[in-house]
Amino acid sequence: MATCGLIEYDHASSEVRAVYNDIMATRGTDWINNFWKALAHDPPALRRTWQSVKEIMAPGALDPLVKEMIYVAVSVTNQCGYCIASHTAAARKAGMTDAMFAEVMAVVGMANESNRLASGYQVEIDDRFKTP
Amino acid sequence: MATCGLIEYDHASSEVRAVYNDIMATRGTDWINNFWKALAHDPPALRRTWQSVKEIMAPGALDPLVKEMIYVAVSVTNQCGYCIASHTAAARKAGMTDAMFAEVMAVVGMANESNRLASGYQVEIDDRFKTP
Amino acid sequence: MATCGLIEYDHASSEVRAVYNDIMATRGTDWINNFWKALAHDPPALRRTWQSVKEIMAPGALDPLVKEMIYVAVSVTNQCGYCIASHTAAARKAGMTDAMFAEVMAVVGMANESNRLASGYQVEIDDRFKTP
Amino acid sequence: MATCGLIEYDHASSEVRAVYNDIMATRGTDWINNFWKALAHDPPALRRTWQSVKEIMAPGALDPLVKEMIYVAVSVTNQCGYCIASHTAAARKAGMTDAMFAEVMAVVGMANESNRLASGYQVEIDDRFKTP
Amino acid sequence: MATCGLIEYDHASSEVRAVYNDIMATRGTDWINNFWKALAHDPPALRRTWQSVKEIMAPGALDPLVKEMIYVAVSVTNQCGYCIASHTAAARKAGMTDAMFAEVMAVVGMANESNRLASGYQVEIDDRFKTP
Amino acid sequence: MATCGLIEYDHASSEVRAVYNDIMATRGTDWINNFWKALAHDPPALRRTWQSVKEIMAPGALDPLVKEMIYVAVSVTNQCGYCIASHTAAARKAGMTDAMFAEVMAVVGMANESNRLASGYQVEIDDRFKTP
Repeated sequence: MATCGLIEYDHASSEVRAVYNDIMATRGTDWINNFWKALAHDPPALRRTWQSVKEIMAPGALDPLVKEMIYVAVSVTNQCGYCIASHTAAARKAGMTDAMFAEVMAVVGMANESNRLASGYQVEIDDRFKTP
Repeated sequence: MATCGLIEYDHASSEVRAVYNDIMATRGTDWINNFWKALAHDPPALRRTWQSVKEIMAPGALDPLVKEMIYVAVSVTNQCGYCIASHTAAARKAGMTDAMFAEVMAVVGMANESNRLASGYQVEIDDRFKTP
Repeated sequence: MATCGLIEYDHASSEVRAVYNDIMATRGTDWINNFWKALAHDPPALRRTWQSVKEIMAPGALDPLVKEMIYVAVSVTNQCGYCIASHTAAARKAGMTDAMFAEVMAVVGMANESNRLASGYQVEIDDRFKTP
Repeated sequence: MATCGLIEYDHASSEVRAVYNDIMATRGTDWINNFWKALAHDPPALRRTWQSVKEIMAPGALDPLVKEMIYVAVSVTNQCGYCIASHTAAARKAGMTDAMFAEVMAVVGMANESNRLASGYQVEIDDRFKTP
Repeated sequence: MATCGLIEYDHASSEVRAVYNDIMATRGTDWINNFWKALAHDPPALRRTWQSVKEIMAPGALDPLVKEMIYVAVSVTNQCGYCIASHTAAARKAGMTDAMFAEVMAVVGMANESNRLASGYQVEIDDRFKTP
Repeated sequence: MATCGLIEYDHASSEVRAVYNDIMATRGTDWINNFWKALAHDPPALRRTWQSVKEIMAPGALDPLVKEMIYVAVSVTNQCGYCIASHTAAARKAGMTDAMFAEVMAVVGMANESNRLASGYQVEIDDRFKTP
């Protein structure tokens, strides 16, 4: 189980409930996933992390689907089981099809391979790729 | 310098030149970046890697810009200097604006943070996130 | 189960028992955790690793609690499930409170985020940070 | 050079200057390091990241020196050159001696080793380490 | 369960069956492990990945046992549970003894430790190690 | 430059010189590379790390060339510039040819790719791969 346990809505302080309410309202859902319930043991961290996630994942120059797929790509690269499961679900909800998922995986696999080939062969950065 | 040095077009075998030619034709450029010149010491790896990159990065369910941004996200997570430089350049060429780049970075930063919070708090995967 | 199984005290050679005894005496406990029982299949590695851990984790310029929290921070960054569980328990035994744990997690999350922002934005090291 | 260049104080917007001023006031310094100047191309990210760093690194259940050493430990584990240089400097300013630095390095090295031994030997988590 | 489920031989398309048949023939086995069954949802990725694995893991300048042990070393460093289990099994089948496994683990542990000591102490590359 | 500078033989204590002498004698060389000179600021760490490296890298069930190639594989996966350079040189000295190097790189690249495909597709470990 989570290191400090999970704080359910019914047992949460009003400070924590306010964040839970905003998460559910923003996402249009009626439940809170375990990540937030575990983090709720540190209310300032809960508030700060949620505010950052809310701000970062909102539509902007990139749409939410692209952002969720990038989130999946990072989580897969880091091999974080929880985040792979939760953000694959979030990306699907945002419109990711099976075909899109397969292409994300292919790019992630290829990038992880070529990152090591570049480092292993000690390839120097081309002048054209350097910022002037 | 690269571990085995770089193989320039003029000194390349016809097998290597064929790959170089396909890279330039596919990308609509007249030059080859160092990654391929370093890998050219292993012609089967050069051919295989290029074929995979060409196939994976082609337009599909995702457009090339999204794929390049995912490539950047993985390279940044792995902290591969060469790939960050080369794929940031490639993503810009594919249409990534400064605003898009900033959003990619924000998502990558956030995902790297929450991956560790999830692992550190030992959060269990919610049943709803499990594939049935 | 562990790749080569676990070697219990009753079935251990005298060489392995000597290490087990020193672990229990040093830690003031009457049991051995699975890590050592798995490693016991390679007695020189068992002895060498325990000697290093014993020497490194002893009180010095840093007290054992700080050392255990650093151990947790590294294990969370690497996302090693076993070490997160075992060293969170060890840090608690050394005096880590829930509030301290939450602060360790917050720093680990932030550092993992800013590490990628620094790499992704290709930030050059300031002259003032360079060792003269 | 940094991907989007560095924004110096004299050329910064009032929004960015406000953050720069708060960084200098909080740290008791008269300069801004490159990390913030690179991030300033995305003012909301600059503000958000600084607010998080300021909140997380403030004295709490852990003192600032311990927090800076944990920051170094994570940056070394991730092998982020910029953050290793900048947070080693910050930790020294907060009171880290050479002897403390050496002990941080020793713990970081050992943890990175044992993380892999635990994973490689596929060691199962002991029941005693599981949260009830 | 796997994100998109597993495709069993009996329900596979002829394109997927052709790859499955080649895997079994090349490995001299009569079964397919889950990795391929999960990847089969993306037939081009299945074909491409298998072709690369088949080409890379074939006897060459290095024999298959050495290659499998390197595969284990990378998987342990990345802490990928599936690949540690599957490639430890593959390495054993290729002739890896318990003593060899223990030595692989010892080298992997040591390299993970010294990688961080080198980065943490910000050690500059010796001129003699640079490629001329 | 290295965080605490480099300790040259002529300025080293007798305790440090003893380790330097053993490194040179064991390796049949007349110089010390920067890694050890940086670590020499912490003599117990210098001694402990050298003793472990000496013991682990000695001929055993695996020959030194295989061990050096595994060391390279881990260093490339972690993207440690110093260790890639130093252990590629060490592996060459131990007999690694360009063809062997290229095969190590190919396996490292492939393993880094498939590690992420396995994690990303959330593939469950086959029963046959589990240790009984």
